[in-house]
Amino acid sequence: MRVESVDFFYVSMPVITLEGDGSQDALLVRVRAGGYEGWGECEASPLTSIAAFVTPPSHGACQPVSAAVLGERIDSPEDISAISTRVKRMSMDLLQAPHTFSGIEIALWDLLGIARGEPVWRLLGFDRPHAKTAYASALFGADPQETFRKGRAFAERGFRAVKFGWGPFGAGTTADDVEQLAAAREAIGWGSRLFVDAGQIWADDPAAALSRVAALEKMNAEWIEEPFGPLQFAESARLAGALSTVGVAAGEASHSEEMAYLLMEHAAVSFVQIDAGRIGGIGPSARVAQRALSRGVTYVNHTFTSHLALAASLAPYAGIAQFDLSEFPAEPKSVAHDITADHLPLVDGRVTLGDAPGLGIRVDLDAIGRYERVVEIVIDGQPVYTSASVEVAA
Amino acid sequence: MRVESVDFFYVSMPVITLEGDGSQDALLVRVRAGGYEGWGECEASPLTSIAAFVTPPSHGACQPVSAAVLGERIDSPEDISAISTRVKRMSMDLLQAPHTFSGIEIALWDLLGIARGEPVWRLLGFDRPHAKTAYASALFGADPQETFRKGRAFAERGFRAVKFGWGPFGAGTTADDVEQLAAAREAIGWGSRLFVDAGQIWADDPAAALSRVAALEKMNAEWIEEPFGPLQFAESARLAGALSTVGVAAGEASHSEEMAYLLMEHAAVSFVQIDAGRIGGIGPSARVAQRALSRGVTYVNHTFTSHLALAASLAPYAGIAQFDLSEFPAEPKSVAHDITADHLPLVDGRVTLGDAPGLGIRVDLDAIGRYERVVEIVIDGQPVYTSASVEVAA
Repeated sequence: MRVESVDFFYVSMPVITLEGDGSQDALLVRVRAGGYEGWGECEASPLTSIAAFVTPPSHGACQPVSAAVLGERIDSPEDISAISTRVKRMSMDLLQAPHTFSGIEIALWDLLGIARGEPVWRLLGFDRPHAKTAYASALFGADPQETFRKGRAFAERGFRAVKFGWGPFGAGTTADDVEQLAAAREAIGWGSRLFVDAGQIWADDPAAALSRVAALEKMNAEWIEEPFGPLQFAESARLAGALSTVGVAAGEASHSEEMAYLLMEHAAVSFVQIDAGRIGGIGPSARVAQRALSRGVTYVNHTFTSHLALAASLAPYAGIAQFDLSEFPAEPKSVAHDITADHLPLVDGRVTLGDAPGLGIRVDLDAIGRYERVVEIVIDGQPVYTSASVEVAA
Repeated sequence: MRVESVDFFYVSMPVITLEGDGSQDALLVRVRAGGYEGWGECEASPLTSIAAFVTPPSHGACQPVSAAVLGERIDSPEDISAISTRVKRMSMDLLQAPHTFSGIEIALWDLLGIARGEPVWRLLGFDRPHAKTAYASALFGADPQETFRKGRAFAERGFRAVKFGWGPFGAGTTADDVEQLAAAREAIGWGSRLFVDAGQIWADDPAAALSRVAALEKMNAEWIEEPFGPLQFAESARLAGALSTVGVAAGEASHSEEMAYLLMEHAAVSFVQIDAGRIGGIGPSARVAQRALSRGVTYVNHTFTSHLALAASLAPYAGIAQFDLSEFPAEPKSVAHDITADHLPLVDGRVTLGDAPGLGIRVDLDAIGRYERVVEIVIDGQPVYTSASVEVAA
């Protein structure tokens, strides 16, 4: 088979708020080859990622992502890897390229699995998918009372693990954060697992992170996530040294597997969190999972959007029993829910990939049509991009 | 003053070849504030970078670069730094953002220098700009004979230092590269300085780099540049350990100052090469230069486009006498030459920044108009971007 077409579908809520909620839009990718189609999702700015696919070339090492993908052979996992290598070389100087390519790479795995009648986790060499404890991933409330109410609601839905992040956390006083953490813990109870996401809030003030150590330990948080910028390894290692039972978690910003390797080697993280929709897809994610296993670092998916993205982010470590956690978008905006016809069920607080071929998540074309934003890009009067319409997809 | 407007000018040759020649297009940026205007240049995919400026937001940490820039205060270098911090936070998840912002940041320094009647190097705290040995930066010829002819031509133009890179180098046999290196050395003579750029060609085959060590040493190359991908630190350190007189050079891919710091700390580079048009502008470049000085690593600019980009890349280390080298685009395409009215002269094989306010390089509006590519981006029928025309600039 050869890659015949790559189409993007930019969907979004009618209004985008400026809270740290990444489920408000999505960029879906449909790839067709040999009479099959596969779907993927970029965790990325949609318009910018589309531009990186269609931009005119600047030179041989700054070509559009399309140049490395269209027409290429796709008969095996090795072919997907070869296309990834082409993108790295031909779009070397195009910074956005990994974000654009991630959704394409995921769609290629989906397509290959469908063509072979195999789930992606089996193509990756796993015997079976293990159930993962799903942690509800949500924003801190505006105040401790709201955080408490959210935590209670998650517990009632069956979650035994909850992560709070962003919102006011880290931006105010240490005392404010102590109250937020206490509310979170009280809401979910001491028998549930608690995680905290700082959203890089202390990038310019590493000392502020240290002042939260005692409260994080006292509330028995399992990790503090992204306390600093993605490459502030020394600051991360220093914080990790000051923590005892709490680990440092990071990695969602990785836009290459090498970035994740360096993080594990130099930043003293206990948890590496990979978004298949950013790092370049499922192949590099799976290699990071294996490296994590050999280093004694716990691999966790990063997912804040649809269940297509969730399935893609679960596949790379589905068969590794030791990695028993999964981020589970707990309060997605309707667009993130509606664009897929299938959803991974929460059973006894856990989530498991199924046996269906490919990623096992069908998209909902009608819903995509309802949320789609139509993009046109014209250069010198010539159209270089017009959004695919879902009608064509039928 | 407040940032009133930011306009992009995408200029390009009529035909883009796929050789590794980055001078075939450019993305210029004009910033206006308080009745002044400053100009900068992104070393980046133009369409993709424009999209990152105008894209609708995805969420609070994935906002367009425009959101962090327009309307902000710009009265001091600290204000520029504050805008940089805003971009890092508000466009955290927008991978292309540093490439887009780099040209804006450069334009802000130019504008501030013009408003104060001071050259940018003085705003950075330097007493005077030191002359740098300009190395002619060019592609290897298709065969050793062409490389020889190029080298001779550079020597005749007064260059005492030459870098060859890309083209066939590294992709064929070791014997082929031995001949290319010998031709380069013979052409420029043993009294001139020679540098070699591998353009990441051995990213997937680190052993191939080791097989070139003897030839690089024998031909007295001062550095081997980008032998691997930008984050393959272990491979870089291993190669550095195998070299004696030749150093490893890298850093042009740095899209944050943290990335350059990690490179100096973990990759055993002897030379750190920073493109102000990619790393986020002049401010982070200047901090990397100071860090390099304290670590005993040599800082060099990376520049392959216009003299506006050259001036911007020279400013961050202009006053540091120990860093005495400058990459000098030796065979630019006409667009890279024509878009500026001023050019930094080569005097006795050296280049020095001048005393004019700002960056001291005026653009040529007529030339920009001749090379400009007009971009229109429309979402849901609403225009979100239309290229500025140079008429407006007059």
